[in-house]
Amino acid sequence: MKAGIIGAGRIGRVHAQNIARFVPEVDIKTVADPYMNEETEKFLKTTCNVAQVTKDAGDVLKDVEIEAVLICSSTDTHSKYIIDAAKAGKHIFCEKPIDYDLAKVHEAIAAAETAGVKLQIGFCRRFDHNHRGVYDIVKSGKIGKVHMIKISSRDPEPPSIDYVKVSGGIFYDMMIHDFDMARFLAGSEVTEVMANGSVLIDSAIGEAGDVDTAVVVMKFENDAIAIIDNSRKAVYGYDQRVEVFGSEGCVKNENDVPNTVILSDADKTSCENTYKIMWDRYTQAFVSEIQEFADAVVNDKDVSVNGMDGLYPVEMAAAATKSLKEGRPVKIEEVK
Amino acid sequence: MKAGIIGAGRIGRVHAQNIARFVPEVDIKTVADPYMNEETEKFLKTTCNVAQVTKDAGDVLKDVEIEAVLICSSTDTHSKYIIDAAKAGKHIFCEKPIDYDLAKVHEAIAAAETAGVKLQIGFCRRFDHNHRGVYDIVKSGKIGKVHMIKISSRDPEPPSIDYVKVSGGIFYDMMIHDFDMARFLAGSEVTEVMANGSVLIDSAIGEAGDVDTAVVVMKFENDAIAIIDNSRKAVYGYDQRVEVFGSEGCVKNENDVPNTVILSDADKTSCENTYKIMWDRYTQAFVSEIQEFADAVVNDKDVSVNGMDGLYPVEMAAAATKSLKEGRPVKIEEVK
Amino acid sequence: MKAGIIGAGRIGRVHAQNIARFVPEVDIKTVADPYMNEETEKFLKTTCNVAQVTKDAGDVLKDVEIEAVLICSSTDTHSKYIIDAAKAGKHIFCEKPIDYDLAKVHEAIAAAETAGVKLQIGFCRRFDHNHRGVYDIVKSGKIGKVHMIKISSRDPEPPSIDYVKVSGGIFYDMMIHDFDMARFLAGSEVTEVMANGSVLIDSAIGEAGDVDTAVVVMKFENDAIAIIDNSRKAVYGYDQRVEVFGSEGCVKNENDVPNTVILSDADKTSCENTYKIMWDRYTQAFVSEIQEFADAVVNDKDVSVNGMDGLYPVEMAAAATKSLKEGRPVKIEEVK
Amino acid sequence: MKAGIIGAGRIGRVHAQNIARFVPEVDIKTVADPYMNEETEKFLKTTCNVAQVTKDAGDVLKDVEIEAVLICSSTDTHSKYIIDAAKAGKHIFCEKPIDYDLAKVHEAIAAAETAGVKLQIGFCRRFDHNHRGVYDIVKSGKIGKVHMIKISSRDPEPPSIDYVKVSGGIFYDMMIHDFDMARFLAGSEVTEVMANGSVLIDSAIGEAGDVDTAVVVMKFENDAIAIIDNSRKAVYGYDQRVEVFGSEGCVKNENDVPNTVILSDADKTSCENTYKIMWDRYTQAFVSEIQEFADAVVNDKDVSVNGMDGLYPVEMAAAATKSLKEGRPVKIEEVK
Repeated sequence: MKAGIIGAGRIGRVHAQNIARFVPEVDIKTVADPYMNEETEKFLKTTCNVAQVTKDAGDVLKDVEIEAVLICSSTDTHSKYIIDAAKAGKHIFCEKPIDYDLAKVHEAIAAAETAGVKLQIGFCRRFDHNHRGVYDIVKSGKIGKVHMIKISSRDPEPPSIDYVKVSGGIFYDMMIHDFDMARFLAGSEVTEVMANGSVLIDSAIGEAGDVDTAVVVMKFENDAIAIIDNSRKAVYGYDQRVEVFGSEGCVKNENDVPNTVILSDADKTSCENTYKIMWDRYTQAFVSEIQEFADAVVNDKDVSVNGMDGLYPVEMAAAATKSLKEGRPVKIEEVK
Repeated sequence: MKAGIIGAGRIGRVHAQNIARFVPEVDIKTVADPYMNEETEKFLKTTCNVAQVTKDAGDVLKDVEIEAVLICSSTDTHSKYIIDAAKAGKHIFCEKPIDYDLAKVHEAIAAAETAGVKLQIGFCRRFDHNHRGVYDIVKSGKIGKVHMIKISSRDPEPPSIDYVKVSGGIFYDMMIHDFDMARFLAGSEVTEVMANGSVLIDSAIGEAGDVDTAVVVMKFENDAIAIIDNSRKAVYGYDQRVEVFGSEGCVKNENDVPNTVILSDADKTSCENTYKIMWDRYTQAFVSEIQEFADAVVNDKDVSVNGMDGLYPVEMAAAATKSLKEGRPVKIEEVK
Repeated sequence: MKAGIIGAGRIGRVHAQNIARFVPEVDIKTVADPYMNEETEKFLKTTCNVAQVTKDAGDVLKDVEIEAVLICSSTDTHSKYIIDAAKAGKHIFCEKPIDYDLAKVHEAIAAAETAGVKLQIGFCRRFDHNHRGVYDIVKSGKIGKVHMIKISSRDPEPPSIDYVKVSGGIFYDMMIHDFDMARFLAGSEVTEVMANGSVLIDSAIGEAGDVDTAVVVMKFENDAIAIIDNSRKAVYGYDQRVEVFGSEGCVKNENDVPNTVILSDADKTSCENTYKIMWDRYTQAFVSEIQEFADAVVNDKDVSVNGMDGLYPVEMAAAATKSLKEGRPVKIEEVK
Repeated sequence: MKAGIIGAGRIGRVHAQNIARFVPEVDIKTVADPYMNEETEKFLKTTCNVAQVTKDAGDVLKDVEIEAVLICSSTDTHSKYIIDAAKAGKHIFCEKPIDYDLAKVHEAIAAAETAGVKLQIGFCRRFDHNHRGVYDIVKSGKIGKVHMIKISSRDPEPPSIDYVKVSGGIFYDMMIHDFDMARFLAGSEVTEVMANGSVLIDSAIGEAGDVDTAVVVMKFENDAIAIIDNSRKAVYGYDQRVEVFGSEGCVKNENDVPNTVILSDADKTSCENTYKIMWDRYTQAFVSEIQEFADAVVNDKDVSVNGMDGLYPVEMAAAATKSLKEGRPVKIEEVK
């Protein structure tokens, strides 16, 4: 299968390289990026076996040989490219989120449905071995009925203030992964969101209208409760853990570590911290999500993270944003 | 020092035995309980070296030889006995909570202050080695400024429905320990409480007007955020863990286990669950709190869990109860 | 039951205190020690409820009221007191080892057998929760047939050179516990011992004719193999772990730690070291062994660590000593 | 750099694929194997970007364009190909062991030295993140002077009896990795070896003249002691752990696990076993060793596992074999 990639930023290059290394059934024919430069071109052609590069996304969208498109461009272009790709009859893998505007998300999903193409959203954490391990146990019924979900998600460093100003806020750009994870683990839909937040790390984040420390509590249709905590700065690394408590048990995971070495000296017993870089933490997850997308397209299977899975977390982010602003619980219905 | 105990239920007997074994500077002269029976009398006299037993608390309160009183009777009698003991000039160790009625709590605290006697409240978890270890690291400054506190507190089995009906609810009878722990770890006072709850374990608990699964998010004066989750039934045992996240690191603890044995067979790698009985989990904490009380009285030191430490968690429980009922965040000021 | 203790050194006082606290069916009537002083007398009478103290062991051995004797004196007196106590018809708990001279060990065991009294040897580690947990799993059959046993046993600090000179060497005074543990876990008898040793910690130990680092490999009748490693100085604390590998799995334990606290800062993730003091590490084991001895006497049950269990490790120590000296494997038969 | 591979069995194919994926500076021009078939050819050309395949190793050795050769053929051909490749002026990566015949090993090393080509031996475990992590800490001096090394190395399943008959025995085909690891971690050379072994898993292994359970104790020049234990069958998976104990501390590692998920149900707390397949356990190590070899050749650096590193473990295996046969410690000098 021939595929194209729109967007040659970090995530686009990661997908290109992973496909070259680990997805033999896919050939990347074309990568399009308005800012394509020589270095990127060389990397894509040499390391990723990409046949050609271009500055025009149209070269991907109009190419009849290309069956599937990976949309790795900036968020504001996602819905447009989904619609264009769907009209061109191409299967679509789109980075999260589809858009911050719920109307645009609905439009993009509808376009893919109308065209009958597959649409997978890049919630890579669903494919992480540790999170998937928790999911598998929840699905197996080993912990019975889900009562509580706890998700910790903390980044090593805050993004730049410039990014904070345009990102839509911590609920849209950071906690959105956790909103997806909560739905994934609960097997039920969220009905109400209550957000709390503080500016504890950098006052400039507060001046930009955002918080850097956030806690969200959510109620599900089945009365389970989820708790998510986010921090923009965990000095010890990328901290991502989940715990699901149920009627028959509790399952949780720990972060990965670079090695399992344990040192005991006269002072203490110690081991290495988790990873400080997202790409190291989720190396395998990025591979797995693309392998599953390729498998879905080549073998005509359902994608496991579809358009609606892209929609709900945006609704949850909208509700959380409203809740934080108004200091009260907000029902999902209020933001639909 | 001679001491008396009012109340010979489970906790009264535990204190009596611990004093006999581990607190050489204290002699229990008298234990009073209206339901004193032969079996209890035998246990107290033989195993705990108690000199005499009685059905009348007055025998303790009026005994001039007795310098300190442990109030281990039912909650509704706590404030009365505190006031009586204070008037009699005796130092007081009182089981938590002082009362559910804030006015009575204030009255009891005032009585102890007026009398100039020591008043320690039985928040034993502050003395647990694992929680104390977290506290010590927070206090040492190793994690910098506190940003978030997470407390999981889950019991192995729900109490009887009869108890649920009179206990005041999950916030007063169970989460009150966690309210205390949150203040202990934060080093700051709570300003706002938002409660969530569900009935997921036993519908009879719901019919009795309570929830069996509860999540509370709290804001502190210093903008730190605490999250507490409670469940009435964790099938794997008494699950009590805390985590404190700060600007310079994160400290957490795990449950104790009966042994450190790890078995790997063809199927999995496994170890023992935590304890299923509170008395096994907090064995050492019950000893330590009484040792500290004895030390405070004998050597005229401040107690570390004083009357005001008994007051605040009751305010927090009141705010949580109101929040759950009204479906909105409640400020502590509203319930003062 | 009334009991007496011969020897009021550290271990004698520990037993006296544990009996006072945790063994209600035993009263210590008399403690005898030629170096009895006021401080020890006060401790024994006040804290341990001991009725009387004496400098003469005969006051214990001749007292018809005393049913059981704990022999906690120096090793060179063990066999003599066992024989005397046996002749006096008293049940005996004797600290390990019975003696370094195999003939004396046999004589002592024979005396107890002839007198029909119980004889328990103080191999306390068999009663430790972590080692017992491994034993229980081995006995349960969960790991199938035992193939290999690995025991690490390292002390925080070497003993004094004066002690090293008279202790009989590392195999008799330190590894003897591990010889017992190996038999306990294997459920089979050792047939051959091969010892290795080095002087790596303190050359004075070498000059005293001993090694400070020792490794012993042993073959059992059932062809299983045991490996023991000893070091006189582990800077991180008292390190005592066992692992049993079998046809159906592997079971091991870890050291206990003072608390379960885990700290992650910008540098590393760390926790507390194990205990640095034997009495902290084996607190519960010392209680359990005495409780079991009391139970055996009071309820006429077999002791679980009998005289023969005291004999075999001494044979193993003799074989290890010979092996190290001669640089070759030594069969147990050679030293019998 | 263009390279060739001699031998297209499992390990040859793994190296080919890893080079295609992760070693951009190397192109595999030719893979030679007398049993080359269509399936292998397709895999090599399609997945590994290999330019051509052949049944004749000479096509690799005579190709002047090829600068480096990976020798992945059967052990009995290693020394011959090393000599041929050295004469052809090609840098050499050779799978372990060079040969079981010490004379041939010496000859091969001499040939590479004479030709001035690099010779790296495939002791991949040195490149494993967990073992390397232990090594790094030992090298850093954090544990002071090395006193003891403990290595556990257990396979999930015994090899076929046909293989056992020709493999040279457990010391040559399995423990050889651990002999290398012991030297790697000790930073000192072994002077004496004492081997023990039993047939506990399959009597057919005994009938073939080998043991399936083996323990070796070794003395180093610096008086440190190493203990290695091997089992042909650990039902719970590929178990490979090391521990180094020193004057200032102790460092050890644990096995990798597929995920960090922990499940607590009413019965126990459990997690996944380690890997059951070597290729899963050492995925990264195989990549790293080839990356380092490529780096050494391309940038003219020393290889870290050279010919002499290939020689010593074979001497240790010879000594262990002799020791087991003769039931006595054997000095390395005896087998040189």
